[in-house]
Amino acid sequence: MNSTNSYTLNELARIVGGRVEGDATLAISGVASLHAAQPGEITFVAHPKYLRSLRTSHASAVILDQATPADRPAIRVEHPYVAFATLLTLYYPPVRPAPGIREPVSLGARVRLGEDVTVFPWVTLSDDVTLGDRVVVYSGVFVGMGSSIGEDSVIYPNVTLYDRVTIGRRVVIHAGAVLGSDGFGYVPGPEGRHHKIPQVGGICVEDDVEIGANVCIDRATLGETIIRRGTKLDNLVHIAHNVEVGEDNLLLAQVGISGSCRLGHHVTLAGQVGLRDHLEVGDHASVVAQSGLAKDVEPHAVMAGSVAMPHPVWRRVQVALPRLPQLVRTIAALEQRVALLEERLTRPT
Amino acid sequence: MNSTNSYTLNELARIVGGRVEGDATLAISGVASLHAAQPGEITFVAHPKYLRSLRTSHASAVILDQATPADRPAIRVEHPYVAFATLLTLYYPPVRPAPGIREPVSLGARVRLGEDVTVFPWVTLSDDVTLGDRVVVYSGVFVGMGSSIGEDSVIYPNVTLYDRVTIGRRVVIHAGAVLGSDGFGYVPGPEGRHHKIPQVGGICVEDDVEIGANVCIDRATLGETIIRRGTKLDNLVHIAHNVEVGEDNLLLAQVGISGSCRLGHHVTLAGQVGLRDHLEVGDHASVVAQSGLAKDVEPHAVMAGSVAMPHPVWRRVQVALPRLPQLVRTIAALEQRVALLEERLTRPT
Amino acid sequence: MNSTNSYTLNELARIVGGRVEGDATLAISGVASLHAAQPGEITFVAHPKYLRSLRTSHASAVILDQATPADRPAIRVEHPYVAFATLLTLYYPPVRPAPGIREPVSLGARVRLGEDVTVFPWVTLSDDVTLGDRVVVYSGVFVGMGSSIGEDSVIYPNVTLYDRVTIGRRVVIHAGAVLGSDGFGYVPGPEGRHHKIPQVGGICVEDDVEIGANVCIDRATLGETIIRRGTKLDNLVHIAHNVEVGEDNLLLAQVGISGSCRLGHHVTLAGQVGLRDHLEVGDHASVVAQSGLAKDVEPHAVMAGSVAMPHPVWRRVQVALPRLPQLVRTIAALEQRVALLEERLTRPT
Repeated sequence: MNSTNSYTLNELARIVGGRVEGDATLAISGVASLHAAQPGEITFVAHPKYLRSLRTSHASAVILDQATPADRPAIRVEHPYVAFATLLTLYYPPVRPAPGIREPVSLGARVRLGEDVTVFPWVTLSDDVTLGDRVVVYSGVFVGMGSSIGEDSVIYPNVTLYDRVTIGRRVVIHAGAVLGSDGFGYVPGPEGRHHKIPQVGGICVEDDVEIGANVCIDRATLGETIIRRGTKLDNLVHIAHNVEVGEDNLLLAQVGISGSCRLGHHVTLAGQVGLRDHLEVGDHASVVAQSGLAKDVEPHAVMAGSVAMPHPVWRRVQVALPRLPQLVRTIAALEQRVALLEERLTRPT
Repeated sequence: MNSTNSYTLNELARIVGGRVEGDATLAISGVASLHAAQPGEITFVAHPKYLRSLRTSHASAVILDQATPADRPAIRVEHPYVAFATLLTLYYPPVRPAPGIREPVSLGARVRLGEDVTVFPWVTLSDDVTLGDRVVVYSGVFVGMGSSIGEDSVIYPNVTLYDRVTIGRRVVIHAGAVLGSDGFGYVPGPEGRHHKIPQVGGICVEDDVEIGANVCIDRATLGETIIRRGTKLDNLVHIAHNVEVGEDNLLLAQVGISGSCRLGHHVTLAGQVGLRDHLEVGDHASVVAQSGLAKDVEPHAVMAGSVAMPHPVWRRVQVALPRLPQLVRTIAALEQRVALLEERLTRPT
Repeated sequence: MNSTNSYTLNELARIVGGRVEGDATLAISGVASLHAAQPGEITFVAHPKYLRSLRTSHASAVILDQATPADRPAIRVEHPYVAFATLLTLYYPPVRPAPGIREPVSLGARVRLGEDVTVFPWVTLSDDVTLGDRVVVYSGVFVGMGSSIGEDSVIYPNVTLYDRVTIGRRVVIHAGAVLGSDGFGYVPGPEGRHHKIPQVGGICVEDDVEIGANVCIDRATLGETIIRRGTKLDNLVHIAHNVEVGEDNLLLAQVGISGSCRLGHHVTLAGQVGLRDHLEVGDHASVVAQSGLAKDVEPHAVMAGSVAMPHPVWRRVQVALPRLPQLVRTIAALEQRVALLEERLTRPT
């Protein structure tokens, strides 16, 4: 994807709220990473550890924080990465597909379509579905009965929304995600068979949520499984029935949340973390990758380990663990030495 | 989803095989959780720890076991959760979509359709596919050559069944699941490249199995990958080639089973568990979440565990780790003995 | 799937480059595993540990290495498993669906189709898509703008390729895989909200790659996410933005690779392994199942992590584990005290 716009360094500084150092009239045709940047482009250094890569970068200008020394024309800002994101949007403005219904599309009864919606071919909108203004629904999407999608949301190809799934505004759902499948609920019968508990609840996804590819979110048994405003789910995340994920969470790839967990706001779960059922996770808590939680987590706690213990304890355990086999031998030797001492002391002299 | 039926407490007690305590003529319009229940509805207490929530519930009646004290009209049963499941089905009877072929559908040669099947648009049924009576196939489903689906099964949107996949009766497959992709089988060539071993076997899913959203089950190299009667797979489970999963298993979300494993009946694997290849897992065994199994498991065993370091060190740590609790006691005893020695040596003789 | 061809043992030996022991004129109608083989078929023993199963096999002939004793007509080769794979292809030659566009298909502007391509119904090929000669695209596949698929590649049902995804030659992508979804990149705003970093890069998948069912590969923020020649990804693998996976890697099921990691060639990651972001993994490194990597890995290193032991033992280990760092200090102190005691006792009084 090539950008065709060009801005002066001065114009860019104004857009990102920064200060120019060097030639403010320099023309900048694009933004790129340190390694990929070509002459005429601007790059950025988000952390001092990448400063060495700056020297060999072909970029004509650089976005820096207030302290880092500049070896070429620069824009000074508080948060270089934020400025970088802003310039990405400037040089690569998002492209919305043209509005319209691209037949063939299967429309149920009482489907309500907002203004300027885009519906690709091979889409199924079941009875009583509502699409808000400017919604985009790509090919192969299935939307079940009574579900609704709020304005400016984008649903990528082959997503399945079952019945009674409510999607807010400006939500992005990536390809292959499934929302509304039955929760994993069975009761044991007398003969050892598993009898299904009907899953008759719904799902509510609030505004500004982003859902990764092939994510699975189960409907509630009763009531609703809820993903609150601004939360982002990475690829292949699993959310079980009756879970409530709070606002502005970041759940990284392959995280699994068991039934009826409640996560506060600004919770971060790193990749492959698993939570047992019915846990409460406090606001601003974060959990290190692959950890398994079996107990509630306090607000602002940082948890780690497949045993899940406070992060500082876990770091010390990681250091000690490889020394464990040596410890076993040390202790055995100590025991012998102590026994010898005891023998000498109790031996009549 | 709203229910429109109403039953007296007496009628409900008869349906779930329980005993009424209090006003048997009370009209009950629905069933709900402790927190969500409204006046006129019945709720349930499955465990004494939820008893406190009962006091503040707005429910007009409650399902209880024989021992728990009741503060309002109640139905007494052995297993409140089972009774709850029964009432869910009563108030929210499953809705089957009307039978019929909803064009456009792509039908191959020699496709056999049972009575009262429902096929949604954008479905592909390849040559020699068979659908039993009352099967429901949702939009975007692909069924490969020679595959068959037994009566009363439901296949949700965007599921892919490759060639020669046999699905039993009353099976439910949730959206995005893939059955029949090639097993991960390669042989190393002399030049270090991986050569594909043809995967020419099939898949057999027996009656009453439920398969979660975006689950992947690989076809066998030769023979069949088998999921036996009554087993339930949660979302995002991976089953490799030539695996045999026994009857009435529960495999929770994101479990991964490597090739040629054989699981007995009534095995439970909690979330994110992984099994290496060629393992035998005995009947009624269960495995705690995130555990990794590298050895066979005895029947009725309960297995658990999960730590990263160089492989030789790791092997020695594996040996030492189970001795850690004993080490703690050994060290405490050693400390006492050394203190005693010190005391004796410093004591004036 | 039944084979209809028959070959003499002599013919088979010539095909696999082996030597016949016993009746070279024996007619062999198929190839099967030790347990499944029927009279008239040939089987194989890949490892001495399976030799016992040979005795009870009904196979009429067997593929063996040079050392293993034969109890029936045999073909001697260096690598029985490779010969087995060759015979599988012989008896079960891959079947390509007949070429042609099976309407209805949605074609954008400037779509270029090579010779003998097969396109199933309900496929969307967006503007500027290119399919090479003999490409097969199954039902429900979506290919975004400017993407291309090299010759002889097969894309199974319900795969989604977003815009600007480049697929090489002889690539196989299994059902439900998603290539090109946005990387998980956000910058925190002043009010604690997460602002999306536009993901404007692409994806490049080189020749001879195989991608499992429901795999997710994110597009790069800038530049390209790369999967190099000959690499194989098992089901449900997650590859984040800007990752580069080298040649001839094997990434097993449910592996997760965080952003900007670079894997060398011939790397093997076993099931459910997770890598944090920006790691370098050297050539020929391998990692044991469920391990979590947080540091770079040297070439040829074998890394490991994760435990399984009986549950009661595991519970006590869980209790002891957080005390391990303290234990290390206790033992060091004990050693000093014992040394002091020993010194005093051996010191002439």
